[in-house]
Amino acid sequence: MRRTLVCAVFASLAGIAAATVGGGASGAKAQGQQAADGVRAALSAFYAALNARDIRAMEALWSRDAEPMIIHPTAPQGRAPAVGWEAVRRGFEEAWPRFEAFSVTVNEPVQVRVGQGGAVAVAVTPVRQKVRGGAALDYTALATFAFERRDGRWLLVHNRVSRVPQ
Amino acid sequence: MRRTLVCAVFASLAGIAAATVGGGASGAKAQGQQAADGVRAALSAFYAALNARDIRAMEALWSRDAEPMIIHPTAPQGRAPAVGWEAVRRGFEEAWPRFEAFSVTVNEPVQVRVGQGGAVAVAVTPVRQKVRGGAALDYTALATFAFERRDGRWLLVHNRVSRVPQ
Repeated sequence: MRRTLVCAVFASLAGIAAATVGGGASGAKAQGQQAADGVRAALSAFYAALNARDIRAMEALWSRDAEPMIIHPTAPQGRAPAVGWEAVRRGFEEAWPRFEAFSVTVNEPVQVRVGQGGAVAVAVTPVRQKVRGGAALDYTALATFAFERRDGRWLLVHNRVSRVPQ
Repeated sequence: MRRTLVCAVFASLAGIAAATVGGGASGAKAQGQQAADGVRAALSAFYAALNARDIRAMEALWSRDAEPMIIHPTAPQGRAPAVGWEAVRRGFEEAWPRFEAFSVTVNEPVQVRVGQGGAVAVAVTPVRQKVRGGAALDYTALATFAFERRDGRWLLVHNRVSRVPQ
């Protein structure tokens, strides 16, 4: 089995952040596992970029066309989706400076569903944050993701995050 | 252009609820439009089944394997995802009897993103509901969907709904 899964956590160094999954003569089950590993690697890269506030690493993870959609409670657009990579990027860039600190961890296991050309993932993520001039806040967020597979890479096309009520 | 898009709003009568999109020699743009129309038809069928509380019509719209994921605020499982068609079905069947009335409409336009093998849609939906023994309640929900294309049909693999805070 040829296996070319590239761990993407330090993708900002490499310049290519999405996971790359190679082909091979492995069985369907192994391929499915390999694909799921690729999605998980892309998710790890997402949270690495988020915690590092690294917009270039983040950019490499997203489909950069006119249609990716993001729904974040902290984004200026509120609860409506930001549509298109430019709006997604602006959302991150405007949100990040408002935080003196934030870190997001991921509770395992992450639910991953891999299809032929797309994947869906759901993660539960404890968040520690401190808005500038505000108090520290700990909460749990629920994050859902949709990916598309393009040229062997899993690219983000959708992310929705909201705080889980206590 | 051969066009075999089947409007699926009355799918519970027909027994096949997901939209069917035929091939043809049309250009990429027309195909993209056709695919988006297919996703919109599947969404219409979803809301028709939801409002009619028709589990058979709903069932025809979903991937019925072990991995579709749904996150509904009204579901017994709370905010955690229900995973697998059986859990999704149980969620609907347990939630519906609790409502004396509910109706969901869809604010147009619905955001739709169509990829090679998958699609994502975001809808804003005014909801009118009355829980048995409770007061009537009007609110707006934000619903996100992921679809996979299988044998020319758009099947639901993910749905997440939450109430938009005022």
